Amino acid sequence: MLQSKLFTKTRKEGPKDEVSKNAELLIRAGFIHKEMAGVYSFLPLGLRVFRKIENIIREEMNNAGAQELLLTTLQDKESWQKSGRWDDEVVDIWFKTKLKNDTELGLGTTHEEPLVALMKNFISSYKDLPFGTYQIQTKFRNEVRAKSGIMRGREFVMKDLYSFCKNDEEQKEYYEKMKEVYIKVFQRLGLGDVTYPTFASGGTFSKYSHEFQTITDAGEDIIYLDEEKGIAVNKEVYTDEVLSDIGLVKDNLVEKKAVEVGNIFTLGTKFSEALGLTYKDEKGKEIPVVMGSYGIGIGRVMGTVAEVFSDENGLVWPESISPFDVHLITIGDDEEIINQAKELKESLEGDGLAVLWDDRDVSAGEKFADSDLIGISKRVVLSAKLMEAGQVEVKKRGEEKAKIISEREAFSKI
Amino acid sequence: MLQSKLFTKTRKEGPKDEVSKNAELLIRAGFIHKEMAGVYSFLPLGLRVFRKIENIIREEMNNAGAQELLLTTLQDKESWQKSGRWDDEVVDIWFKTKLKNDTELGLGTTHEEPLVALMKNFISSYKDLPFGTYQIQTKFRNEVRAKSGIMRGREFVMKDLYSFCKNDEEQKEYYEKMKEVYIKVFQRLGLGDVTYPTFASGGTFSKYSHEFQTITDAGEDIIYLDEEKGIAVNKEVYTDEVLSDIGLVKDNLVEKKAVEVGNIFTLGTKFSEALGLTYKDEKGKEIPVVMGSYGIGIGRVMGTVAEVFSDENGLVWPESISPFDVHLITIGDDEEIINQAKELKESLEGDGLAVLWDDRDVSAGEKFADSDLIGISKRVVLSAKLMEAGQVEVKKRGEEKAKIISEREAFSKI
Repeated sequence: MLQSKLFTKTRKEGPKDEVSKNAELLIRAGFIHKEMAGVYSFLPLGLRVFRKIENIIREEMNNAGAQELLLTTLQDKESWQKSGRWDDEVVDIWFKTKLKNDTELGLGTTHEEPLVALMKNFISSYKDLPFGTYQIQTKFRNEVRAKSGIMRGREFVMKDLYSFCKNDEEQKEYYEKMKEVYIKVFQRLGLGDVTYPTFASGGTFSKYSHEFQTITDAGEDIIYLDEEKGIAVNKEVYTDEVLSDIGLVKDNLVEKKAVEVGNIFTLGTKFSEALGLTYKDEKGKEIPVVMGSYGIGIGRVMGTVAEVFSDENGLVWPESISPFDVHLITIGDDEEIINQAKELKESLEGDGLAVLWDDRDVSAGEKFADSDLIGISKRVVLSAKLMEAGQVEVKKRGEEKAKIISEREAFSKI
Repeated sequence: MLQSKLFTKTRKEGPKDEVSKNAELLIRAGFIHKEMAGVYSFLPLGLRVFRKIENIIREEMNNAGAQELLLTTLQDKESWQKSGRWDDEVVDIWFKTKLKNDTELGLGTTHEEPLVALMKNFISSYKDLPFGTYQIQTKFRNEVRAKSGIMRGREFVMKDLYSFCKNDEEQKEYYEKMKEVYIKVFQRLGLGDVTYPTFASGGTFSKYSHEFQTITDAGEDIIYLDEEKGIAVNKEVYTDEVLSDIGLVKDNLVEKKAVEVGNIFTLGTKFSEALGLTYKDEKGKEIPVVMGSYGIGIGRVMGTVAEVFSDENGLVWPESISPFDVHLITIGDDEEIINQAKELKESLEGDGLAVLWDDRDVSAGEKFADSDLIGISKRVVLSAKLMEAGQVEVKKRGEEKAKIISEREAFSKI
């Protein structure tokens, strides 16, 4: 894509009312637009990152055999009353609205209830189980405060997977499988080295749940991390009893601020009992389905990456979710440089790489500053001087030094 | 994918409260689930069709040079008050909700206002124009009645593109280009032969707009069609004056029921003037941006296809949006048949085709009936008898007769 055609522009200052680093940087770089606190639109560069995160997660969920569906935002109260979660006193983050005939509706904050109601049409026998299904869908949560940019939105997209199993043992197996899948997902998203499976409260149906916590000062959670084991425990269950139970030793733990980028949770039969989702076992006995839930917020991952990998010059995208693979920068507008750029762009695109070419009529300094701010993982510079020597400059956004390589190498190796 | 693993099942009857043919069929075949009137979830088979429609539209929008973004559902009233469209008396399909501090919000019915407000950050000079940007995003419309299945939802996904031009002439050019793009989109979606550009009311800023109307008895619109010219006129502007203006002759027109699957509209400076979106021309003069809007409802296209291409046995998907490319059916469970099926599935998938293999332990009759109901565009049958003769049966869902081809052909030509 030609940068001169991109309708967004970078800006020197973020909006004055923006207090979070991730949103401030992403707004300045033209990735997102703030509609109101906790509500952000995704602009072309931001949407490219968003889709890459989404697709990595989707691939791993599909690889794990889960089936994708898409539930609705508008929620009828019936199922939620059965589970006891309709009342604003019980769930205090509902957005509610009304049909013309005054029927009250809610905007989905999560989707256990409608999914369980739906599954009553499809689950009847032990032969139907186990399986997992997920969606990548917009949630609405009426947060009193929303000051963490796209890390905590009032409107945000989440991958939520739900498992349906015959019994606790089968559920535990699914849970352990998803824990491994999650580790792989965060590795692929570039967050692997700073993200830890973290013991957290398990609710009614299991001792613990697991959060995936990424270390960052922007996080709202406190965790205690065993760096050697690569395991942490959330402050909310940080007791001697728990530590001994999970085999962690206080002296080996360091306190860290972290953000929960994912969680996996055993739901037991809470929702299936409330809504009557049962299956017949081999003997024809009706048994409630055992469930689990597994979430990852797409915007939260993107915001976390922006917090963790940025520097004083701007964003630093991991290769796997960089909006483009290569930021091609031409210095000067000699016909020869332009032709070289066209050829290189075509060659890279032919190899399946996405290229943003800064073809704008602005100074080299402005191009470099914008390139750092936007943070595409690899920058390639073409100039008359380099061309004379048959050379091209390549620099990874995260590294200090640029490398000079031959033009020939550039065409075959970038 | 193995059909035995698909969590959805077909059913003989649709829900009793479902009055539309498209929803009734799609529910019976396990493509969608009704949450409430006008609000449907998309199940795995349905979501596959949905995504294919989405991707065809996205490809054509990108080919036309438009840039994708993603705006929000939650709407602050400020921009809408400026355009005069916040009041429920003016726009009677708003869903409204509230923040905890009682600030009133709306759920986006369309997105001219927030997009124009956003563009004030990026459009300042004549050099920034023209361009188009689009999203594929969920709209909410509080319809009093919602009886047309997924053809008219209270919650539905729409592709809405907006163009930003310097003047009427440039806008007219963009509009004419999009008219051609739309013709191509509906051809690719399989609706080309029954969809007609239709003159409709143009509002304040242009004489006419164009709707793309698909002929079906399920449609809510009446159009007058010149079959030879392939052009129609909506009943709302069907006057002698208009006919003479657009060069149609009453005697050549036939009255048809139709559904509006897309529309293109010149907005003029209505929104840019209301919200102050201007650019500086070469002489530094501030001039309001001229806009256009271009919509296609994803669910509406899917529902329309279900209405138009179904028969008494079920759905009949056009190849381009079929949930799978091939429905592979094995009769009997001899090891040899199963092995042949595995090999054929692998071979087809190697060629990039998506295969649903009905490996269930049910009768051949049930498999055939379900295959017709689900409507995958091509069915391939393997049985002991066919195998003995080195043959495979292939049938297109829309055609009467099956063809017997050699096994070898099946591996190379399906």
